[in-house]
Amino acid sequence: MLIVMKSGASESEIENVLETIEALGYRGHALPGENRTAIGLTGNRGAVDPAHFENLPGVAQAIRVTQPYKLISKDLRPEKSVIKVGNAEIGGSELAMIAGPCAIESREQLIETAETVVESGAKFFRGGAYKPRTSPYAFQGMGEDGLKMLVDIRDQFGLNIVTEAMDEHGVDAVEKYGDCIQIGARNMQNFSLLKYAGKTRKPILLKRGMSATLDEFLLAAEYIMAEGNYDVILCERGIRTFADHARNTLDLSIVPAVNRLSHLPIIVDPSHGTGHNYMVMPLARAGVAVGADGLIIEVHPHPERALCDGAQAMTPVQYLELFDEVRRIHAAMAVGSQRNEEKLLTVA
Amino acid sequence: MLIVMKSGASESEIENVLETIEALGYRGHALPGENRTAIGLTGNRGAVDPAHFENLPGVAQAIRVTQPYKLISKDLRPEKSVIKVGNAEIGGSELAMIAGPCAIESREQLIETAETVVESGAKFFRGGAYKPRTSPYAFQGMGEDGLKMLVDIRDQFGLNIVTEAMDEHGVDAVEKYGDCIQIGARNMQNFSLLKYAGKTRKPILLKRGMSATLDEFLLAAEYIMAEGNYDVILCERGIRTFADHARNTLDLSIVPAVNRLSHLPIIVDPSHGTGHNYMVMPLARAGVAVGADGLIIEVHPHPERALCDGAQAMTPVQYLELFDEVRRIHAAMAVGSQRNEEKLLTVA
Amino acid sequence: MLIVMKSGASESEIENVLETIEALGYRGHALPGENRTAIGLTGNRGAVDPAHFENLPGVAQAIRVTQPYKLISKDLRPEKSVIKVGNAEIGGSELAMIAGPCAIESREQLIETAETVVESGAKFFRGGAYKPRTSPYAFQGMGEDGLKMLVDIRDQFGLNIVTEAMDEHGVDAVEKYGDCIQIGARNMQNFSLLKYAGKTRKPILLKRGMSATLDEFLLAAEYIMAEGNYDVILCERGIRTFADHARNTLDLSIVPAVNRLSHLPIIVDPSHGTGHNYMVMPLARAGVAVGADGLIIEVHPHPERALCDGAQAMTPVQYLELFDEVRRIHAAMAVGSQRNEEKLLTVA
Amino acid sequence: MLIVMKSGASESEIENVLETIEALGYRGHALPGENRTAIGLTGNRGAVDPAHFENLPGVAQAIRVTQPYKLISKDLRPEKSVIKVGNAEIGGSELAMIAGPCAIESREQLIETAETVVESGAKFFRGGAYKPRTSPYAFQGMGEDGLKMLVDIRDQFGLNIVTEAMDEHGVDAVEKYGDCIQIGARNMQNFSLLKYAGKTRKPILLKRGMSATLDEFLLAAEYIMAEGNYDVILCERGIRTFADHARNTLDLSIVPAVNRLSHLPIIVDPSHGTGHNYMVMPLARAGVAVGADGLIIEVHPHPERALCDGAQAMTPVQYLELFDEVRRIHAAMAVGSQRNEEKLLTVA
Repeated sequence: MLIVMKSGASESEIENVLETIEALGYRGHALPGENRTAIGLTGNRGAVDPAHFENLPGVAQAIRVTQPYKLISKDLRPEKSVIKVGNAEIGGSELAMIAGPCAIESREQLIETAETVVESGAKFFRGGAYKPRTSPYAFQGMGEDGLKMLVDIRDQFGLNIVTEAMDEHGVDAVEKYGDCIQIGARNMQNFSLLKYAGKTRKPILLKRGMSATLDEFLLAAEYIMAEGNYDVILCERGIRTFADHARNTLDLSIVPAVNRLSHLPIIVDPSHGTGHNYMVMPLARAGVAVGADGLIIEVHPHPERALCDGAQAMTPVQYLELFDEVRRIHAAMAVGSQRNEEKLLTVA
Repeated sequence: MLIVMKSGASESEIENVLETIEALGYRGHALPGENRTAIGLTGNRGAVDPAHFENLPGVAQAIRVTQPYKLISKDLRPEKSVIKVGNAEIGGSELAMIAGPCAIESREQLIETAETVVESGAKFFRGGAYKPRTSPYAFQGMGEDGLKMLVDIRDQFGLNIVTEAMDEHGVDAVEKYGDCIQIGARNMQNFSLLKYAGKTRKPILLKRGMSATLDEFLLAAEYIMAEGNYDVILCERGIRTFADHARNTLDLSIVPAVNRLSHLPIIVDPSHGTGHNYMVMPLARAGVAVGADGLIIEVHPHPERALCDGAQAMTPVQYLELFDEVRRIHAAMAVGSQRNEEKLLTVA
Repeated sequence: MLIVMKSGASESEIENVLETIEALGYRGHALPGENRTAIGLTGNRGAVDPAHFENLPGVAQAIRVTQPYKLISKDLRPEKSVIKVGNAEIGGSELAMIAGPCAIESREQLIETAETVVESGAKFFRGGAYKPRTSPYAFQGMGEDGLKMLVDIRDQFGLNIVTEAMDEHGVDAVEKYGDCIQIGARNMQNFSLLKYAGKTRKPILLKRGMSATLDEFLLAAEYIMAEGNYDVILCERGIRTFADHARNTLDLSIVPAVNRLSHLPIIVDPSHGTGHNYMVMPLARAGVAVGADGLIIEVHPHPERALCDGAQAMTPVQYLELFDEVRRIHAAMAVGSQRNEEKLLTVA
Repeated sequence: MLIVMKSGASESEIENVLETIEALGYRGHALPGENRTAIGLTGNRGAVDPAHFENLPGVAQAIRVTQPYKLISKDLRPEKSVIKVGNAEIGGSELAMIAGPCAIESREQLIETAETVVESGAKFFRGGAYKPRTSPYAFQGMGEDGLKMLVDIRDQFGLNIVTEAMDEHGVDAVEKYGDCIQIGARNMQNFSLLKYAGKTRKPILLKRGMSATLDEFLLAAEYIMAEGNYDVILCERGIRTFADHARNTLDLSIVPAVNRLSHLPIIVDPSHGTGHNYMVMPLARAGVAVGADGLIIEVHPHPERALCDGAQAMTPVQYLELFDEVRRIHAAMAVGSQRNEEKLLTVA
């Protein structure tokens, strides 16, 4: 059920609808839009009678939703969500660039990398303190000590911190130290973790699972939002296919597919998405050209010495060139693209 | 590092090796075999010098291991592990049959199903109290109330209980109420959960992830074992491919592949592996014929009314026929198969 | 359009319907069944009016078909087609075993292999004279010289010859020398070749393409049958997935899926389906257990010297044991399986 | 074997090397480069002794090649091949745009579409006369009549004609009427057809098979080139994966992978690559941004009436906007991209 408020509806009218929903034993989610607020109703097993809401003051329409998702849907919020991450934004007109090493290894490594990231003009710094590794015997990350180093990076460079949590303890720690909690591909359907993350008040960067369909990806976001955290950023990072020339197959068609259904921003990870240094630049360009709201890029001052995924890390010099390139493409698109896509959508 | 004890090595000699390992800051895992005990050493970053162990009393050999896995390996234990689950076994000469509904729905449903399961001669009962569902709005299971009903089934019918845990709380609960903790496909690389499960003392049924390679599957088991719980049962449940005639593609070739590398038992789930009632019987037969140690089958007294996965559930009548069929095939194989496979392995 | 004749319909009544179809500008395909003949009508763009046929003498029913396939369908012939190949059959109660080397290399190699094949009791001999190779620089087969050697094998051992054609010239040659024309996986959607093969009067062994869906597979058979050759045998040989422990992923669930929709026999190729010698025996057992009508197995007297796919070839000793194993399983299934599956189908 | 000539080598020195190769029973392929000519040697089973060539006049070096491919390789020709198609080029600094309907339906449809294609400034016109269709009962194309209409389009509009051949007869016809022979995805490993096409003297547009690896794709091109036709243009058109939001998964990472190994140009087909009108524009942009040498786009004056693949066809208005967009991106890349990629390659 989706309750669309009139464009002039007051705060107290919205509040009244939310209370009515809760009185019926359901849960209400108010998502303010540009022109008016829509309220998603969740927690119902079967159909809910629209008559409960249609005559409440300020309500324009109560619509039954038959799609599997509600809160991620453009029906609820037609314009793209701009998510506040620290002191910057993802989903707005500016391309969001998140850069940094795969794993936090040392204070020196972080500082050296952060200097490059700041120089490029990017506003977000990434670096893993908790690393999901295929082998139990591989380097598992520096844990809370690493998170504390990230705090220093934020203090020193003014970068906003994006870092992964692998479990409830990690979510608590990243909520405390970071600006954005990353849920990795392997945990995209760790539903308990999604629910837990949904109870925090920090934005969530949700990576697509290696074999996740579009529906599963959007419903994973819905899990988080159903708990009350509406600040979800999606991330395409490659899927698993038979193709063996890249570590994963970056599925850029998911970007227009998400943009068609959902108001959530989506970014692209060409580093994990390809696994090869020489592919990162071309696929970063393609990610921007396909319409992503940003990129997440692995940078390492000395890729050959990296403890994790060195083969895909860019050197600082390469990264600065990459940022130049994608900025040029983003600018080239700014003129025509948005206007055109709207036209296309109405035709399609 | 793998330390193979002499066949007559005493308990105190084994203990002495384990203490030496710990004194060096590593972790020792003693796995007794038919003829002699092997001790796996984990926790090392780089290579460990075999000289530390070669001259200890009772030690036959200290072998450097270059494969990514140690504890799951046939190098450590050449014969198949027979895992005790409640009062029965998985991995022995008898085919292990686990049957029951996808989700626990009511006491009546469980009793009606358990009567069929007992009648068939199966020794394990399955039923989900915590259900991983793609949508946050789908039925999520009865939780601890459901687990308590399973306890009654065990008391009344003498069946051993296999049920899924999705998070640490669930692991605690299943450890308390059940006989075997299932880790589902979506959590196969939830490394925090694997480690947590590795600290329990109940056997773990580990399902293959939808896009997991053989290495990733075995290393997920290694995660559990590295924490000290060596009772892991693997389960093939279908992988994600382009093929659309079945819900998943049951990859039976993983059974001989696992048997070649690992001592762990492996069972097959033709219910989730196909998603269609009419495919369960033929793929159950194939699962037994390929050499699996058992099957896990969804049975529901009234599939058309099931709250979860009704399309793949077998009726009691179908299930009893299925068990007859697979028993006949298992008997037909008993004579020649094991002998032959050994020959094949030596040739291959 | 499907025209079902009455059970006592005469030859001339059938002939009359076929003539009526042709007079309307379409094509008629009479497939005699156990109890009555059904006639498929193809060549129509839109719907055909059943009234043209309903009142013709001997016609029981004229049914509009909305499925994409007609001639492969169980609607046309409810019972399984038994295909005559040389002096033996595929699709009947006996398990069809096709065995021989991947590529024909020499007369000695063929004779040595044929002795094993005859000893096992198999009735079909395979051996490639035209080899589809990924590289233009790999051994491409002995061509017509190879086919002539196969004729000698038939003469000497009484085995029926199954061998691949890659183009129209090859189809002509195999039609001349062989008993069954194999269309390989890479040519499954070579529609020109399928049509050409449909004009021959030798049975066709059609292998599933590496990324073919069930529909595409059945429609490839439909291409052959639409030209008038109804003797098509399907073959599952593994699909391409991310899984890397086998050369392909043998998708055994296609066997019940085909059996549900089509009257065509289907066999399984565990040699190409796995690519590893040690997997061939277990997957051969599984192929029989899942309900395939036969197996195609690569045997080579000296696999280590094979010019093509030696890694998957069985030695004569292994092959004889394999045949013993699968025979035992086939016998174990004979009692219960067919009866049960019919029950399942009525329930499903 | 690869024989690199000195930069000043004369025609007769090159001729002399080719004769020496043929005298040894092999085949020589001279590919002139910017600075010097390299000669590929094929037809050898085992290794060839470099001593045969090293001392011939004009020879700089004779190099043993261990990779599976020779003629497609950058070792043979370091700079990108610019392929002449009719009166225009593919592989040069200008973006090659190929546009037109999926299937030829009528003269009016072709003229209406060609007017748009000419207006955009594109130089290549596509349109299928022979259509590979999954079902034998679907529209199979207008055949030679369609090809003759394409000739009229070339005469009237000056566009160069790209159209598919499905068999030898089709290759002959397209060689006669068209400017570029397309080999479709389903025939990428139809090796007999590849060899036949290799004997023509028209350029070949080779589409990647639905489940083709990079190696298989390049070796399919090698098949054509080994017969003496060196004018091959590769085309990425989407691969088959589990993802269900698009008809295929467009694998753009193959573009840098091909560019790293081969001198052959590669274009992208976002129409078949996605199957959805609304995705064509964003993926066309991405295709250009990733570094493709061109695009092939389906345009239809009335997509809703198309006999084939209407869901993915662009209207003329959409197509003109698309071309504007991609031109802007191509220009944005021109400055920095090529310079940067060279740097990346030297680092990687």
